[in-house]
Amino acid sequence: MRDVSSMLEQFQQYMDALDIPASPAGLYGPVRYALSLGGKRMRPLLLMLAYSIYRDDVENAFDAACGIEVFHNFTLLHDDVMDKADMRRGMPTVHRKWNENTAILSGDGMVLLAYRYLNRVSSENRERVLQIADKAFLEVVEGQQYDMDFERRADVTEDEYMEMIRLKTAVLPAAALEAGAVLGGATRHDQESLYRFGEKMGLAFQLQDDWLDVYGDPGVFGKKTGGDILCNKKTYLYIKARNLADCEMNAEMDRWAEYAGGDDQRKIDAVKGIYDKLEVECLCREKIVSLFGEAMECVKSLDADMKRLAVLTDYVSGLIDRKI
Amino acid sequence: MRDVSSMLEQFQQYMDALDIPASPAGLYGPVRYALSLGGKRMRPLLLMLAYSIYRDDVENAFDAACGIEVFHNFTLLHDDVMDKADMRRGMPTVHRKWNENTAILSGDGMVLLAYRYLNRVSSENRERVLQIADKAFLEVVEGQQYDMDFERRADVTEDEYMEMIRLKTAVLPAAALEAGAVLGGATRHDQESLYRFGEKMGLAFQLQDDWLDVYGDPGVFGKKTGGDILCNKKTYLYIKARNLADCEMNAEMDRWAEYAGGDDQRKIDAVKGIYDKLEVECLCREKIVSLFGEAMECVKSLDADMKRLAVLTDYVSGLIDRKI
Repeated sequence: MRDVSSMLEQFQQYMDALDIPASPAGLYGPVRYALSLGGKRMRPLLLMLAYSIYRDDVENAFDAACGIEVFHNFTLLHDDVMDKADMRRGMPTVHRKWNENTAILSGDGMVLLAYRYLNRVSSENRERVLQIADKAFLEVVEGQQYDMDFERRADVTEDEYMEMIRLKTAVLPAAALEAGAVLGGATRHDQESLYRFGEKMGLAFQLQDDWLDVYGDPGVFGKKTGGDILCNKKTYLYIKARNLADCEMNAEMDRWAEYAGGDDQRKIDAVKGIYDKLEVECLCREKIVSLFGEAMECVKSLDADMKRLAVLTDYVSGLIDRKI
Repeated sequence: MRDVSSMLEQFQQYMDALDIPASPAGLYGPVRYALSLGGKRMRPLLLMLAYSIYRDDVENAFDAACGIEVFHNFTLLHDDVMDKADMRRGMPTVHRKWNENTAILSGDGMVLLAYRYLNRVSSENRERVLQIADKAFLEVVEGQQYDMDFERRADVTEDEYMEMIRLKTAVLPAAALEAGAVLGGATRHDQESLYRFGEKMGLAFQLQDDWLDVYGDPGVFGKKTGGDILCNKKTYLYIKARNLADCEMNAEMDRWAEYAGGDDQRKIDAVKGIYDKLEVECLCREKIVSLFGEAMECVKSLDADMKRLAVLTDYVSGLIDRKI
């Protein structure tokens, strides 16, 4: 069984050699650019690691891994248009580098390419893999809709928030793991266990993102903290605070939400102060740890070589920040 | 064999009962609205008519017909965003009725639903139908890109234009016909012949649209003529005129392209005057008739009952305006 970094390198070579058509360049140039921005390739890696629990010939999992990765990058591209985001992974977003129409259309091209790659999965597993992808893909779009809906709502509950991030961010890694298990020939029980493992992990990662944006070390984290607070983003911390706050504190949060004084740090510190009073930082960390534990519980009963499973769980553990 | 109107009615009932999820309503409401705008349902009808040449149980073709129709409506939705169009089939476009982000995301949802419906095609034909759809879908997006590219170019040739409209508008009806033939159990020869028939017909329809926009009867056509001239749209007439015009006439066309005097009718009449001098109206009509003839040639050698084939060719002939 290969280690994570050699697996990643081999997959990256496959992605670099991907048969994306040359013309029209106005369509496929932005597609290539969006895919080159890289990122951790977490979803394909999860797929390959799940596959590797059962089989060694990991290159058999590349088509499915690629389909899911291309789909994921399509969602980032269109999300950036909708959020009017200027930068993605330190580079200008497609709609900034080109324009909005180019971003819409090249995103459309990417989702079609994602299906093209998924359709290359060998025939004995294609139907199941397409079924898994189809379900997850539509759920991701539903999650994005709930996220947009929540922007205009002040009364989002914790349960609603958890369901939104489950759809928007957790089901795709979960589907990647399940597809990897299917391709590897795992039992139905193992396929489902790996899906649930991915779901819990995905939730933990999103809460970690929420936490890092406020409490992360800017040196390690690579960007300033407080961005979510500044744009009144409904994160786990924010929703938890809203639900725990008394009338007075809620009024204070309302005032900061509408603050236009221009002193960003003052707003960040004030809202952070409210979080501290309500101890939501601690509740968030507890939730992350508890989700992590639930995830690990899901893979305890796998019909698998423990050493092979450990490569997956070690990789996932490595993604959870040690400070939490 | 059922007639066209009863086939259409049955398909419409199927579409009305389509399992589009209820929530999030912000996502699926616009999807339902976009699909309810209707239109002629030309692509599903072509698919069903091709199927009906070989088999009677046309409801077996509904899933594929629906997948292609949902995809087509997705392209209209995103095209309207990119063109900033206010109206579609007499109703406000999705991005006008809701907003741009809703239009982007509900379009994304529609393309995923299109694949979901296509994946319901019975297993013995699913692979071929997906292959046909996959190719056509990406070509439609490529065609839209070429169309956008051409907006910024003054030197588009007739060949380039014909290839652009082949991709943007002809391959999807062609794919619908081919998929119908596949599902009906037609020979490979017949499948390919019906594809080529659809391609030629699709080209003829687009040139007819170009022609109608300038020479159509506003009473019958339902909208004012000259819209394409006003927005300097590169149609067959425009490109043909550009390619035939001498220096002086090209300069005149340049001037009208930049005209900002506000007298719309004056611009329309002037450009129409140039078209008349260069006889491009006549060339356009000749091309339509010739494409129509080529299309009919493609289905001459089908291994089919001529009466059944005639239902298809009669329907298609009915779509070609009698005045051309």
